Amino acid sequence: MLSKPILAVTMGDPAGIGPEICVRAWQRMDHNACIPLFIGDVYPMQAAMRLFSVPETALHVVQDVSGIVDAPDVLNLYPVGAVSEGDYALGQVSAAAGHAAFEYVRTAIDLAMKDLVDGTVTAPLNKEALHLAGHNFAGHTEIYAHFTGCSKYAMMLAQDDFRLIHVSTHVSLREACDRVKKDRVLEVIELAHQACQAIGIEHPRVGVAGLNPHCGEGGLFGREEIDEIRPAVELAQQKGILADGPIPPDTIFSKMRGGLYDICVAMYHDQGHIPIKLIGFVYDPVLQKWQSVDGVNITLGLPIVRVSVDHGTAFDIAGKGVASPASMLSAIDYALKMALTRRNQNV
Amino acid sequence: MLSKPILAVTMGDPAGIGPEICVRAWQRMDHNACIPLFIGDVYPMQAAMRLFSVPETALHVVQDVSGIVDAPDVLNLYPVGAVSEGDYALGQVSAAAGHAAFEYVRTAIDLAMKDLVDGTVTAPLNKEALHLAGHNFAGHTEIYAHFTGCSKYAMMLAQDDFRLIHVSTHVSLREACDRVKKDRVLEVIELAHQACQAIGIEHPRVGVAGLNPHCGEGGLFGREEIDEIRPAVELAQQKGILADGPIPPDTIFSKMRGGLYDICVAMYHDQGHIPIKLIGFVYDPVLQKWQSVDGVNITLGLPIVRVSVDHGTAFDIAGKGVASPASMLSAIDYALKMALTRRNQNV
Repeated sequence: MLSKPILAVTMGDPAGIGPEICVRAWQRMDHNACIPLFIGDVYPMQAAMRLFSVPETALHVVQDVSGIVDAPDVLNLYPVGAVSEGDYALGQVSAAAGHAAFEYVRTAIDLAMKDLVDGTVTAPLNKEALHLAGHNFAGHTEIYAHFTGCSKYAMMLAQDDFRLIHVSTHVSLREACDRVKKDRVLEVIELAHQACQAIGIEHPRVGVAGLNPHCGEGGLFGREEIDEIRPAVELAQQKGILADGPIPPDTIFSKMRGGLYDICVAMYHDQGHIPIKLIGFVYDPVLQKWQSVDGVNITLGLPIVRVSVDHGTAFDIAGKGVASPASMLSAIDYALKMALTRRNQNV
Repeated sequence: MLSKPILAVTMGDPAGIGPEICVRAWQRMDHNACIPLFIGDVYPMQAAMRLFSVPETALHVVQDVSGIVDAPDVLNLYPVGAVSEGDYALGQVSAAAGHAAFEYVRTAIDLAMKDLVDGTVTAPLNKEALHLAGHNFAGHTEIYAHFTGCSKYAMMLAQDDFRLIHVSTHVSLREACDRVKKDRVLEVIELAHQACQAIGIEHPRVGVAGLNPHCGEGGLFGREEIDEIRPAVELAQQKGILADGPIPPDTIFSKMRGGLYDICVAMYHDQGHIPIKLIGFVYDPVLQKWQSVDGVNITLGLPIVRVSVDHGTAFDIAGKGVASPASMLSAIDYALKMALTRRNQNV
């Protein structure tokens, strides 16, 4: 392995904005820090390069990781051979593009599992296309879990230094209340602690949100803080984790933004998603579109590094050269941090 | 009544930051737009004026609204005669200061009910001091309800053009789920519509949040969107209200911030408080304090205009001259908008 970390970056569904955000990120990233190895196909990559007037000669097709060229004006592509011209149309859901996106991910996982790359970064795929191609996974995370043989994993959302992990996600708000149990809260506090250590924060400060408004005001409206959350925080503290909470849900995120915590444990989906989307998403009312989307998803618990952009394929703007690479750049940055931390731990 | 609107601005608990944010706001506000009539006492006002080197001669004591002087270098004070030197100490809870704060509010309400002023703005009072003084009200809003004889009212939170109203507030999250009922949601949509009209928005666009993550994804996790919220939105639309929803809770606030809505209906306390505090509050991790607090509370349903700052008495920094008048300036601005709208409606 080269001394500069290599990150396998999948192109995502070739009919979406994946190829162009790959090129855009390649143009803007810090090439001194790591080498991106794009996993995709020649035709969609060349099309995306033309969008931004990148000379054809910049493309360097790699059949083997040892063939990677480390130069800022070289775009290393590991072609999977899944699609070529005429196999798919930009902005259209198709089995061909869905299958290609799947193969890119599978290949990236394979390279990482063989330790040929230091980590993986994923551009968006389209679930409908994935299913049309006969790959019945709910999404990226399930593909990773399957091919790495991992059954216990969790998702961290990050937007710069604003980091989140959830006690529950896609369940009703009523069920989310039921899921606030001491053991689960403790488990998520521990995952939060490990996640921050994985990106190089030695002693992470973990803020733990309450469930009820004002943390229930001493049991006046809701007892989860007393019966479940505070005991979990105390157990975490006994294990040496710098856990703090329960903190009122309506101030904990302002406090993290102010630098008081490295990560927050959210008790339910929207408790965490409302603040992170408010920070990272800007809605353009004239275009009725998201103007920029930053932020990343990090899958915790896998044997390999995996960071994803937190937006979709955006078929409506694919091929127009207007998609923002902000999230992709953040994802590369987070994957690099995790890769370097792993290297240091292995020394 | 003078042609320029007069706003009665209470000084709040004289032991807190109320007097100084009054002086600070008086220095920075637009005196061409309205005349603030401060309701308080001479001693605390003079002390606050000295903090910012305002000459003593600027203070104009008014015994009657007709005596108000309209000049930007004149600070009109309507003294209540509740406290003087030695009656209270800065930063200390006391019955004397609590009683004074109560009297300021009662006086402001009285002037507004007699139509001698166009609206009222309130600086923070301290509930403990209020109760020590024997005034057993939960807070400002209950004092207003009592003295205006109003039993049906609601609170709107606003931070510039980011406006919110809640289906429920201080109940457990489980009970908040139970309270998402068609009739109540419709009532709050109507209040939101009226609130925006009261500040001069003729055709308000009302965004209505869902309760469950992703609005329950068609009943997959939670049915409140199908059974309660959508029917309420449809009834509101039939009444001519530009209601839109249910909108996924994790994107509706980014959309409002992008200008798509004039106000949002939040289904529970933290759904609304998390985004508004994230926007308005900045936490300083070194001082472990809120660095600036903007945003206002508007009481809807009263026969008079009432806008309040959305922060407390901040006893820990009282008298230091560091409290931000941002929220007070916003409150004056909102009260002015409401007063002007009322005048236009009465013409």
